[in-house]
Amino acid sequence: MRPETQIITLGVRDLDVSRRFYVDGLGWKPKLDVPGEVIFIQIGYGILLSLFVLDQMELEAGEVGHGEKAPPIAFGHLVDSPDQVQQVIDRAVAVGGTEISHATKRDWGGVSGHFADPDGFRWEVAWNPGFQVSMDGDVQIGPVA
Amino acid sequence: MRPETQIITLGVRDLDVSRRFYVDGLGWKPKLDVPGEVIFIQIGYGILLSLFVLDQMELEAGEVGHGEKAPPIAFGHLVDSPDQVQQVIDRAVAVGGTEISHATKRDWGGVSGHFADPDGFRWEVAWNPGFQVSMDGDVQIGPVA
Repeated sequence: MRPETQIITLGVRDLDVSRRFYVDGLGWKPKLDVPGEVIFIQIGYGILLSLFVLDQMELEAGEVGHGEKAPPIAFGHLVDSPDQVQQVIDRAVAVGGTEISHATKRDWGGVSGHFADPDGFRWEVAWNPGFQVSMDGDVQIGPVA
Repeated sequence: MRPETQIITLGVRDLDVSRRFYVDGLGWKPKLDVPGEVIFIQIGYGILLSLFVLDQMELEAGEVGHGEKAPPIAFGHLVDSPDQVQQVIDRAVAVGGTEISHATKRDWGGVSGHFADPDGFRWEVAWNPGFQVSMDGDVQIGPVA
């Protein structure tokens, strides 16, 4: 079984709130928007983010849900320079996100910080010079020199 | 801010358990494996799955964690024919996963089922004839005729 993911589904409490944040706020254009049900947004080559109303998600995915802590997942959004890390976090905060950690120099050699979306889902904004993608999409990741 | 995700991090309780399931079990080859810390696996063009020990993840991502229910997220793995859906689920179950839902014909026109990894993270295995990827990676998704 070759690993290949083409959709990543997040169960959200209120799709209108998610739309205001991702679509109206961050300006991400949906591929498909079914009010009260699901919004699909392309987040990479051949891959969609699906924001899916939680109670409908449970009909297919079984008992999933939000607990006391935020879900243990983070989406990594890479930027081209250290300065852009905080700029992206500031933009997210301006449209209703929450800053979790300020842009910080990390032991692994890059700079990163986190914001949360309205459901608490984490986005890591990072400048990571050790992350390289070849022309055919192959990723190399390693310690930064 | 253009949507572009290059790493998806899951906070896992025990990295050795995750390794047995994903690497030894499903046969997914890590790009980088740092025992006791993190395993990176490529899951698409230019995108890595990061299995990250939860208590270390919290140092960067703030208070995240597993609750009573499974995390409200599912990874969508598409297959080429309806029959393959249950085959992939069976393979996952054989190496320590849990079947959440059997391969089922869905209202949206395809066939899908779910399994859970050892931390409860859902994987949706689906045959979806309405999901199309162009040569440049652009996705079209819509109702199935």
